[in-house]
Amino acid sequence: VSGSVLRTTYHAVTKAPEKLARAIAVEQTVEIPEALIDARTDREIVGKVEGIDPLPDGRFALTIAYPAGLVASLPDLLSVLYGNVSMLEVLRLADITLPPETLALFKGPNFGIQGLRDLLQVHDRPLLCTVLKPRGAADAHFAKIAEEFALAGGDLIKEDNNLLDAAPEASERRIAACASALARANRKTGRRCLYFVNACVPIDRLERLVAFAVKAGAAGVLVPPLLMGIDVVRDLAARHRIAVMAHPSFTGTFFEDRRHGIEPGILMGTILRLAGADIVIFVNHGGRFNYRKEECESMAEKLRAPLGNIRAAFPAPAGGMTLERVGEMVNEYGTDTVLVFGGAMLGGLGGVGKSVEACLAALETKRGQPRGRPR
Amino acid sequence: VSGSVLRTTYHAVTKAPEKLARAIAVEQTVEIPEALIDARTDREIVGKVEGIDPLPDGRFALTIAYPAGLVASLPDLLSVLYGNVSMLEVLRLADITLPPETLALFKGPNFGIQGLRDLLQVHDRPLLCTVLKPRGAADAHFAKIAEEFALAGGDLIKEDNNLLDAAPEASERRIAACASALARANRKTGRRCLYFVNACVPIDRLERLVAFAVKAGAAGVLVPPLLMGIDVVRDLAARHRIAVMAHPSFTGTFFEDRRHGIEPGILMGTILRLAGADIVIFVNHGGRFNYRKEECESMAEKLRAPLGNIRAAFPAPAGGMTLERVGEMVNEYGTDTVLVFGGAMLGGLGGVGKSVEACLAALETKRGQPRGRPR
Repeated sequence: VSGSVLRTTYHAVTKAPEKLARAIAVEQTVEIPEALIDARTDREIVGKVEGIDPLPDGRFALTIAYPAGLVASLPDLLSVLYGNVSMLEVLRLADITLPPETLALFKGPNFGIQGLRDLLQVHDRPLLCTVLKPRGAADAHFAKIAEEFALAGGDLIKEDNNLLDAAPEASERRIAACASALARANRKTGRRCLYFVNACVPIDRLERLVAFAVKAGAAGVLVPPLLMGIDVVRDLAARHRIAVMAHPSFTGTFFEDRRHGIEPGILMGTILRLAGADIVIFVNHGGRFNYRKEECESMAEKLRAPLGNIRAAFPAPAGGMTLERVGEMVNEYGTDTVLVFGGAMLGGLGGVGKSVEACLAALETKRGQPRGRPR
Repeated sequence: VSGSVLRTTYHAVTKAPEKLARAIAVEQTVEIPEALIDARTDREIVGKVEGIDPLPDGRFALTIAYPAGLVASLPDLLSVLYGNVSMLEVLRLADITLPPETLALFKGPNFGIQGLRDLLQVHDRPLLCTVLKPRGAADAHFAKIAEEFALAGGDLIKEDNNLLDAAPEASERRIAACASALARANRKTGRRCLYFVNACVPIDRLERLVAFAVKAGAAGVLVPPLLMGIDVVRDLAARHRIAVMAHPSFTGTFFEDRRHGIEPGILMGTILRLAGADIVIFVNHGGRFNYRKEECESMAEKLRAPLGNIRAAFPAPAGGMTLERVGEMVNEYGTDTVLVFGGAMLGGLGGVGKSVEACLAALETKRGQPRGRPR
């Protein structure tokens, strides 16, 4: 390949690594039998096998370079990286290196870590986020949580990802109630606690919802990219000056078999950042889900690693975290982290306000920790 | 739960099936600690555990009923069925039963099996589909394949899923060239060979592409729902009177670990049909991919099974099929099937025309086979 390439490494369970590597290079580009590949197509379009290296566990690392010109959009990128080969057994997308041409296709987060810190005027500690839940509660319940959280000094409020409404009007009533409670609290504190509205709605309702949320004063949206479409999120972030918090719903199959799927840092880190996520929620190890420490750290690292001109994004470890874990989480992830407490904060003795105060006090003792930039 | 329910069965690897079943019922609905669930929430919102049954392999079948009122859209449905629990190890969505309220939310395929047969005036044999490939070839090459295929009596032409263009104008030139060649051939044969344009484009380019394709005479689009967003496909099919052919790119992680993910018939059959797919391509066993016979047959069955007022859709086994397999595929899948030959048809001796003739002759000997309705 002359010119820039998109370099990928797949980890494969195979007895014929050379044959498989070439098959992948063909599958992801032209999908035709070898006999039909002419010299020009082979030179200009088909991926190039650059390396075949045995791994300690008996698998092989297959390094394949695709011409950067094959990719002009996010669906193209996903298609070339792992579209058809997702259906091959057993093959994991383990690493990618994107050339400047590919990075230049994407705008990335509208705010990123620095931009959100500037909005909040919080520069030296992790951000504290809570969740409006549970589904089925009254709007006044949600508004009260929002108000108490903001009054006590919390930073970010997100709606639960399952706050779904059959009627747009129901969502709008909740958004109005919460935004107004939050505005009242913000006026008292002089700070700006940010509100992320759940935007997991059918695509034909998305514009109305986002317009309403922005007008009401919400700073951003909560979106599950795999439920709604990763490119839907990219398009939304490109068209609106909103902050985007990504939710991991429906992502689990990419990670469950550690020998198949996509390395979590690539999908939840690099790809979601390209798609415009300012904050990416992932399930922390030691909670309700079974993620591993090294997978969580890879996601955090990829969200903050240099990536052309794309802004760095906040990792947000979540999923059944208890308030006692604040110190441990800051030690692990560093200061440039969003700590999400849902049930734990709502269930704390003394209510949301006391829980926030306890968290902020715990964070105070952690001042001066490293920011968690990639090692 | 009073009223209708959405009934699901998960197959779980677990030592504590009762605890896990309740945890799923909570996770997929309210996501709060047990201590915070009040009686009304438990009654009206939380899923109900209806059954816990040991499976012969040591796993457990957990049957959980969700209130139908929790689901008002396709993202809701995916979220409730498998959103957060996709991140639990090891849990497969094995079966679903959708109540009339849920089915009524969806329009399904615009044409379906009967509608496409009416368009084509082909009622008694499988449909024959070929693929415009490879990426990088000249428009004249694609147009020639289309013309030869139609002149020889083929039914459906789809663009390869990797025919992606940086500039909309490039796609439009190809579409115009192929549509015009096809129109010429159709005038000669008096038949109507249908053209499916690859619509795997960024969402902000989708409307322009579809409008151009329809105006040029294309009957439908090829879309990869998991790359673009399943709800994007639903919305597209709902707004345009086009036929939709779904491509399985990026679906592999849902099926690779047979104990995790989603049973293929549910995702590729029921869900894609709700989303409006008239034809669903899947990778047939015995080709380049490693799918199993029973998985392929489940997809075919679910595409044609009764599903409220939703039209039945064509299964389209594909992925490295050779022309010699026509007879076997008709025996297996029945008459209501789309047979997709890409490389095999292009590489056949005597060119596309002879390959089509050979396929049609093979199909002729299979006349009178069962239609492949679900057993």
